[in-house]
Amino acid sequence: MSKFRVGLIRVLTTEDKDILNSHGRIIGEKFQNIEVISKCIENQREGIHSEKLKMEAIPKIIETAKSFNNIDMILVSCAEDPGVKELRDIFDIPVTGAGETTVSLSIKYGSKIGVLGIIDEAPTPYLELIKDKIVAVEKPKCVESTLDLMTEQGRKSCIESAIKLRELGCEVIALACTGMATVGMTKELEEAAGIPVIDPVLAQGLFVYFEYLRRFDK
Amino acid sequence: MSKFRVGLIRVLTTEDKDILNSHGRIIGEKFQNIEVISKCIENQREGIHSEKLKMEAIPKIIETAKSFNNIDMILVSCAEDPGVKELRDIFDIPVTGAGETTVSLSIKYGSKIGVLGIIDEAPTPYLELIKDKIVAVEKPKCVESTLDLMTEQGRKSCIESAIKLRELGCEVIALACTGMATVGMTKELEEAAGIPVIDPVLAQGLFVYFEYLRRFDK
Repeated sequence: MSKFRVGLIRVLTTEDKDILNSHGRIIGEKFQNIEVISKCIENQREGIHSEKLKMEAIPKIIETAKSFNNIDMILVSCAEDPGVKELRDIFDIPVTGAGETTVSLSIKYGSKIGVLGIIDEAPTPYLELIKDKIVAVEKPKCVESTLDLMTEQGRKSCIESAIKLRELGCEVIALACTGMATVGMTKELEEAAGIPVIDPVLAQGLFVYFEYLRRFDK
Repeated sequence: MSKFRVGLIRVLTTEDKDILNSHGRIIGEKFQNIEVISKCIENQREGIHSEKLKMEAIPKIIETAKSFNNIDMILVSCAEDPGVKELRDIFDIPVTGAGETTVSLSIKYGSKIGVLGIIDEAPTPYLELIKDKIVAVEKPKCVESTLDLMTEQGRKSCIESAIKLRELGCEVIALACTGMATVGMTKELEEAAGIPVIDPVLAQGLFVYFEYLRRFDK
């Protein structure tokens, strides 16, 4: 059987192939028969951490999506799901993002959900899908963009925030930035907080595999 | 790496090994490194299609769960999730059921959810997790228990119900009986209704795989 080909769009501009492919590599390693082709949008050096940056990104995301060849699915690898709705109107293959997939998985783990991301508010899909289940939103100290997550201080702040969310009564933490997955901190956060932590990149991968299974289901 | 061993509990008593293993076989085939050991509870010839039958089943489910050896996870393969909460209090390994897993996946596919099962009401986890998103519940004509799904008439009635749910404005159908997966009708329902149909056995499998990945994540 030929592989299920996924076009993955990074919303962080990078020339570093390791960074570019970091989400796709995780998905390709953990799910069989999935091939991920990663591309990033241009001129988005800080990724997306404001409404303005999101609006700038959407046309570039659409343009990038159109540049893939022979793909079976599109992933916008960002918890804000920028452009996902727009892409669904254009393409007739499955389209999803890190936001809605993380949210969906999180509700199985608790009705009191904590959101841990890089801005003070929960991303749009979190508010659209589970607003009434979100009990707290935490932005780690000194973390302003996905780049800050790569520092030791950023890592420590994330752990402090995860513990705080548990103390506030959260039963599960839905991460709200794929950068936290890129630096592999999910397991560490989970061990520190003692509650399940949903990883946005793994969440996307799970739904990619679900679409693959649905496609080939008899 | 040794396989991730799942103890799967069928709530339908059967001596037929093919029927007993039908859910476990699907999960084992579709997800790598997963081994499923299936057992059924005793004296439950019609499965669970009433509160009374559910109450009778729960102690038997707990007893069956205790009879597994060296398992990494427990699945109660029924959309009502009978005994899932009770088992979580007893065991310190992951426990889930077909209900909460189906519900979780379904919210990614739409905010207007149709429930298609074998009773007039949505199963308990559907009401607990997504009551405000359920726009219609359909019970196919002439289908009273999971056994009726194995007949041609039962199959036709299910297709009619799926189409009706789409006509009522549903964006996604969350199946509410694992028997519909056993007879392999998910794809057929999806093609007839023209909207995504979430299969409870596949939903469980996806969360089994998620737990497997979370366990071995570095």
